[in-house]
Amino acid sequence: MGLKQPDRRAFLKRGAALAGGLSLGAVEPAIGQTPASGQSVEGQDYSSEELIAYGQRSRFVTSKRIPHGGRPSPDEFDLVFHVAAPLQDSVGVITPSALHYVGTTRGSFVPDIDPKEHRLMIHGMVDRDLIFTMEELKRLPSVTRLHFIECAGNRSNRRHTTVQETHGMTSCAEWTGVLLSTLLEEVGVQDGGTWIVAEGVEEVKGASSLPMAKAMDDILVAYAMNGEPIRPQQGFPLRLVVPGFEGILSVKWLRRIKVVDRFYMTYNDYGHLRRDPDDAALSYQIGPKSVITFPSGGQQLPGTGFYEVSGLAWSGGGAVSRVEVSTDGGESWMDAEIRGTPHRMAHTRFSFNWTWDGTEAELQSRCTDELGQVQPSRAQVAEFWGRPGVRGQDNSIQPWRIASDGSVHNAIS
Amino acid sequence: MGLKQPDRRAFLKRGAALAGGLSLGAVEPAIGQTPASGQSVEGQDYSSEELIAYGQRSRFVTSKRIPHGGRPSPDEFDLVFHVAAPLQDSVGVITPSALHYVGTTRGSFVPDIDPKEHRLMIHGMVDRDLIFTMEELKRLPSVTRLHFIECAGNRSNRRHTTVQETHGMTSCAEWTGVLLSTLLEEVGVQDGGTWIVAEGVEEVKGASSLPMAKAMDDILVAYAMNGEPIRPQQGFPLRLVVPGFEGILSVKWLRRIKVVDRFYMTYNDYGHLRRDPDDAALSYQIGPKSVITFPSGGQQLPGTGFYEVSGLAWSGGGAVSRVEVSTDGGESWMDAEIRGTPHRMAHTRFSFNWTWDGTEAELQSRCTDELGQVQPSRAQVAEFWGRPGVRGQDNSIQPWRIASDGSVHNAIS
Repeated sequence: MGLKQPDRRAFLKRGAALAGGLSLGAVEPAIGQTPASGQSVEGQDYSSEELIAYGQRSRFVTSKRIPHGGRPSPDEFDLVFHVAAPLQDSVGVITPSALHYVGTTRGSFVPDIDPKEHRLMIHGMVDRDLIFTMEELKRLPSVTRLHFIECAGNRSNRRHTTVQETHGMTSCAEWTGVLLSTLLEEVGVQDGGTWIVAEGVEEVKGASSLPMAKAMDDILVAYAMNGEPIRPQQGFPLRLVVPGFEGILSVKWLRRIKVVDRFYMTYNDYGHLRRDPDDAALSYQIGPKSVITFPSGGQQLPGTGFYEVSGLAWSGGGAVSRVEVSTDGGESWMDAEIRGTPHRMAHTRFSFNWTWDGTEAELQSRCTDELGQVQPSRAQVAEFWGRPGVRGQDNSIQPWRIASDGSVHNAIS
Repeated sequence: MGLKQPDRRAFLKRGAALAGGLSLGAVEPAIGQTPASGQSVEGQDYSSEELIAYGQRSRFVTSKRIPHGGRPSPDEFDLVFHVAAPLQDSVGVITPSALHYVGTTRGSFVPDIDPKEHRLMIHGMVDRDLIFTMEELKRLPSVTRLHFIECAGNRSNRRHTTVQETHGMTSCAEWTGVLLSTLLEEVGVQDGGTWIVAEGVEEVKGASSLPMAKAMDDILVAYAMNGEPIRPQQGFPLRLVVPGFEGILSVKWLRRIKVVDRFYMTYNDYGHLRRDPDDAALSYQIGPKSVITFPSGGQQLPGTGFYEVSGLAWSGGGAVSRVEVSTDGGESWMDAEIRGTPHRMAHTRFSFNWTWDGTEAELQSRCTDELGQVQPSRAQVAEFWGRPGVRGQDNSIQPWRIASDGSVHNAIS
């Protein structure tokens, strides 16, 4: 069974799907490529009692979160400290919990909560105040749903290099918990109880006002993510998950929900300085959005030929219904393949088969959601708002330029 | 906003869904339940540079895998060493990668592979042998799919106490990779190439024979699970994922696939000593199966009242189409709620609203798949095979007995 030299023209011979000439590596022995014994390995012994109980990733995998916005480390005088997910390494739609983005306006404050001691109080304009232990919450009817969370400030600008910097403040997980409506029906919302204020275990902030219509619709009081208890950085042991709304509203370390008769201004609402409660509520929703994660800024294509272009699309308005890709800077658009069945208010993976011929190209993606909302271009956002990002959210199209040497760059000019 | 004593009758007043009187805890102050500063915490500083890069679970969460079958630790003379997932703590359908079950017949052997050096060779009865680097595989069209993997020996017996012991040798993850059919089309399977033999990086075993029909259908050459590279214990950097077939066929640390003209006996096939290749192939498929994870053996109900009974159902035959629950030892059955849209060959979460009145009860669950296959009772399996488990697989119904003191026991007699 002698090995032949791999046929470098194999991918050239294929039809449209794979046309393009994937350059294959040289023949190498496939046997004996690993140490004779993996029993004991420098830096990580995968057979240790600790790793039998709870595994770890390979020492060769070094993908990591980074502080967002140029702040190298938390600072007690700089309370906004965000940590961005490495979207350039993402596949599928689940963000590993260890890599889920973190947003906080309390520095690196992470409460260390004993779940046995934790309580959720629901009070205010209700028929009966109730306080729930974690054990009690877990006895109630639960739901499990895939949802993204995204910081409203997750926007690109010309200074950013990588997709982690431009779009890393969003992640997607399988959340499990009790519908807030289940709890609100239990306490009995009184007439006129039209808003809730949700408060987390934080000192100066951590409260969010949310309209009752949303509270009774799809908000989760979540105790688990990706099949295990929520991680401390994501709100252990209890987090409000507000599907499709700005991430700051998904209150972490949730301890109190008060039913009230109006929008209450809180520290979390500094981005919503509107007079009209309806207007304020509407501004919560994340617009249709997408970004190509491969190839993306800072990456390097090893050569011409076939590539699967891949990215994420999402919308606060529901499920993604269409994703288009342009390779010529938005002049022409082609439908990307939507991978799997899109979930509502969840990251959706898309892909696009592309053959790069070695000339400069500009890749863009554009998302349409189930409401028919279309992700705008940067020029469209600028025309409407003056400039992108000025109103907090910016869901404009992210362009990546492929230089003729295969290097990939942020193409925002 | 003075707190009233929680109304213990609240859940009694509800309709059918929640009827039953959830006993609520005493009122406690919801403010000041955590340390004033979470900045620095004994044992885990969540703001450290390391935990900004890659997070960890709470120190209060101690759910862990355990060695299966009574072997406390790997032993070089005892090559079958399995590690079971803590299903009693599971929620949703994603098994966290750190808790995904591990099966091996090479002790605790875990190769420590540098992905830059790893190659996949495809050869045998093909038009052109090819060797792929990891980088090349990742350029190809990929798919992302939710699939369970289960050891054929995942069966209960009367000696087992917990669901981790009875059913912990199955887990479910979001797998990403290239369809094997994509690669096989590329190498060009010759006439008569009706089987493949897939080999992993192991010394005496790690090869599996699989029929070409399955290879061209839905087998994945996977490089990622749950949004990051596959963990070493699950086959880093490359694993064959054979949806719905016995777990041993999902070859870890995959390095070679040979196209052949017949079933080849390998070490992995010790459980398939059949003369007829068709029969051997059919035996690969995992039958329709389910198990209640809460309440399950070894757990303790804190009192009478409402409980959400919850569990997992799956089948090698496709998607789960129905799950029924019995609370009287199989005398009568009621439909459970299937949570979300079942995926094919994937764990499916089901739940059942139950009010426990304090009398002894026996909980069972029964799965039906899209082919109409129904999970058999233990008596039915015994009638057919002599006794459950004698032919390797055992998908019989697992009964849990709730004693009048709320303790939960394996009810296999």
